[in-house]
Amino acid sequence: MTNSLQMYLSENKSRQLDELVEWLRIPSISTEAAHKGDIMQAAEWLVNNMRTSGLDHVELIETDTHPLIYGDWLHAGAEQPTILIYGHYDVQPVDPLDLWETPPFEPTVRGDDLFARGASDDKGQTFIHVKAMEALLQTVGTLPVNVKFIIEGEEEAGGAALDAYLPNHTDKLAADLCLISDTGILSPTQPLITYGLRGMWSGEITVTGPTSDLHSGVYGGAVHNANQALAELLAALHNEEGHVMVPGFYDNVEELSMEERQEMARVPYGEAELKNGTGVPAAYGEADYTIVERAGSRPTLEINGMWGGYIGDGFKTVIPSQAHAKISCRLVPNQDPDRIGKLIGDHLQSLAPDTITVDIQERGGGSPAFVAPIDLPEIKAAARAYQRVFGIEPVFKREGGSIPVVVDFQKALGTPVVLLGFGLPDDNLHAPNEKFHLPLFYKGIETVIAFMEEMGGRGS
Amino acid sequence: MTNSLQMYLSENKSRQLDELVEWLRIPSISTEAAHKGDIMQAAEWLVNNMRTSGLDHVELIETDTHPLIYGDWLHAGAEQPTILIYGHYDVQPVDPLDLWETPPFEPTVRGDDLFARGASDDKGQTFIHVKAMEALLQTVGTLPVNVKFIIEGEEEAGGAALDAYLPNHTDKLAADLCLISDTGILSPTQPLITYGLRGMWSGEITVTGPTSDLHSGVYGGAVHNANQALAELLAALHNEEGHVMVPGFYDNVEELSMEERQEMARVPYGEAELKNGTGVPAAYGEADYTIVERAGSRPTLEINGMWGGYIGDGFKTVIPSQAHAKISCRLVPNQDPDRIGKLIGDHLQSLAPDTITVDIQERGGGSPAFVAPIDLPEIKAAARAYQRVFGIEPVFKREGGSIPVVVDFQKALGTPVVLLGFGLPDDNLHAPNEKFHLPLFYKGIETVIAFMEEMGGRGS
Repeated sequence: MTNSLQMYLSENKSRQLDELVEWLRIPSISTEAAHKGDIMQAAEWLVNNMRTSGLDHVELIETDTHPLIYGDWLHAGAEQPTILIYGHYDVQPVDPLDLWETPPFEPTVRGDDLFARGASDDKGQTFIHVKAMEALLQTVGTLPVNVKFIIEGEEEAGGAALDAYLPNHTDKLAADLCLISDTGILSPTQPLITYGLRGMWSGEITVTGPTSDLHSGVYGGAVHNANQALAELLAALHNEEGHVMVPGFYDNVEELSMEERQEMARVPYGEAELKNGTGVPAAYGEADYTIVERAGSRPTLEINGMWGGYIGDGFKTVIPSQAHAKISCRLVPNQDPDRIGKLIGDHLQSLAPDTITVDIQERGGGSPAFVAPIDLPEIKAAARAYQRVFGIEPVFKREGGSIPVVVDFQKALGTPVVLLGFGLPDDNLHAPNEKFHLPLFYKGIETVIAFMEEMGGRGS
Repeated sequence: MTNSLQMYLSENKSRQLDELVEWLRIPSISTEAAHKGDIMQAAEWLVNNMRTSGLDHVELIETDTHPLIYGDWLHAGAEQPTILIYGHYDVQPVDPLDLWETPPFEPTVRGDDLFARGASDDKGQTFIHVKAMEALLQTVGTLPVNVKFIIEGEEEAGGAALDAYLPNHTDKLAADLCLISDTGILSPTQPLITYGLRGMWSGEITVTGPTSDLHSGVYGGAVHNANQALAELLAALHNEEGHVMVPGFYDNVEELSMEERQEMARVPYGEAELKNGTGVPAAYGEADYTIVERAGSRPTLEINGMWGGYIGDGFKTVIPSQAHAKISCRLVPNQDPDRIGKLIGDHLQSLAPDTITVDIQERGGGSPAFVAPIDLPEIKAAARAYQRVFGIEPVFKREGGSIPVVVDFQKALGTPVVLLGFGLPDDNLHAPNEKFHLPLFYKGIETVIAFMEEMGGRGS
């Protein structure tokens, strides 16, 4: 890294942070219709910032849902690789709002952390790339590689716009590598390369007993309570150690290789860290797997939401007509989302007693899992970039989250995908008090620069 | 019944109905603070109506919560019995509001039914007594017995005001019999005497896992989902045939006598009627008991409400920090509410895995069950009154509902309690589209008059 680049980064720290704060103030919640205008505002803000940062052909692409953003810089020469950078400018909903220490859209720095919805997922991490390009273009004047950006505004809402756009714009988006910063590392000082992501299937279960709510005094004892019937069905989905009891659920699930288990065992995260970080009284899950393996490499079935009957203040002694659950599965390689959905549906139907009916509907579409070979040259370049900036070799881990677009990029563009993350395990993603650890914002910019240098054959 | 009385009842039908409709328009929901003014308005309305109807000493009694109403007519002579009539002018909440065919507080007559919240429970049934007194006092000029009224405004909200008032006003309320119309009969043509009521214990369960909601992709598989843990606990509370699995729950529960079972077997209500009336695909519950026995004479444990995690539109892949359930038990004689609450709490704690914590809190206070001897003279008088008006002998049944005040009256005043009900099984109590079958409003007035005559030794 040149001296002028170093100086530029150092001198522009607070201005780059101010820009991120300004962007985070826009409540770009993609799942809530009321925020459609905010989504547009957040997109336009980024378009302007990318232009100012020196990128070419920056455009806001209108879609049936939320806009996509494209931009590029293609002057590194045909012999240099082209990197397609993906990120998203939409954010998760914010409830329960009362648990936020400071309002989610009034970004607040406390200590080394910036608290705001989207700070880490994914405005903050997306912005790292824009600011890395800016630093290079404003000092060196060129990039070591060719770069394209494609940024979406509905990653948290199913990603329909990009799904539709990708297959029809493979030439425009053609690249040698797709680079995504939407994952985390282990600690502020320990980088980590995520080489696998779980896939997803999600659906909604509805149990129906009587046609309307009944008085529990009049009918209690002779009618199957829909809440109870739902609880009974949900309780049958796992055994005591957290193994999913849906027949066929683990078919085709490959056991971890010895090498992968050894690599994951290097991650210094166990029950003590889990309890400390989350407040759970004890770890949960399959006894034959470590905490890191359970949370990253094993398929899961979670009840994300559950409701039925009277849930207001006070009491209402009803037997509810219906009870509902939103469930989702994190999937590992070789699990087909459609098949998993069908297995769950069939299993619930087979368990359902004749006293109620049960309905299972897929919600939000499924996505398969992703695993990259650890020894891919692009992953080795990412490892060297982390090593250069953090002064320590990254560990390798599969992560439990799902980024459906990773599989979409692989399929549509045929490119490998590298996940170059800068979040932390306690960033409170999708939860109150989301934050971004600011030293990682700045180190992220340096790491992205280092990665481009490594990819451009200019490692130093 | 005299001719002038008959004529009065016939000529005043529509005016008496109009008055009831006017009263039902006042949304006297006792559990919702926003309706405190409506409660007062409904109380004042009744005070005025009781005065106009000819009752003496009518007064609105202010309390710490909602007002009580007293009124009497004590000129029948010391040799005649005194009957204390109880009712309540508060009503249940109305949600889900969108399931009401006509608004709950715009009373609407469709066919023979009057639809409105409180039409049956209990404004309509309370008003029967006021109109019976009016008819006698406006025609005969006297009542066959001495009468006192005590009407409360928070039966649906725990009944604290009456609880506090009763033990300190035993002289004022002293009577030979307490008469309550807050139950139902079998059909418009088949009267029924409820000689038992179930008691109640209610509480709230909270399961806590992590201190805040977690990202299911990051932690799924290593943390016990609070929704899942709650479902697992709730599912363990019943076996497949609906038997409550809390150890000690059935201790002291007396088996039904052969006589009672025979009497209940006369009630022509079985699985076909249950399915038809409620829309359930099949009956549920203890195989050794009939539908009528299950719903009226067996103790139950119901999950009235259940919620946790993300329950809004769309999807949020969280592992919830907490999950909640509102549960209540209908109790039979010899089950002590406090002991039942403790047994449930102990059982849930013993089932709780170390991956979560569970907290159980009593809500709303408990009440024991009530059973009156079938051969009580006052119950025989009620049977004759029904027979005179309906032309058919009533059947006898224990009902599943709870009217805590029944036990309170027995305890505080030492009087027998007679339940003279005029509701129907499909009145949609505590549910959308509550209604009162109007022929039973008018027959109710005649039956109350007949009962007073029977009690005053003037059966005809």
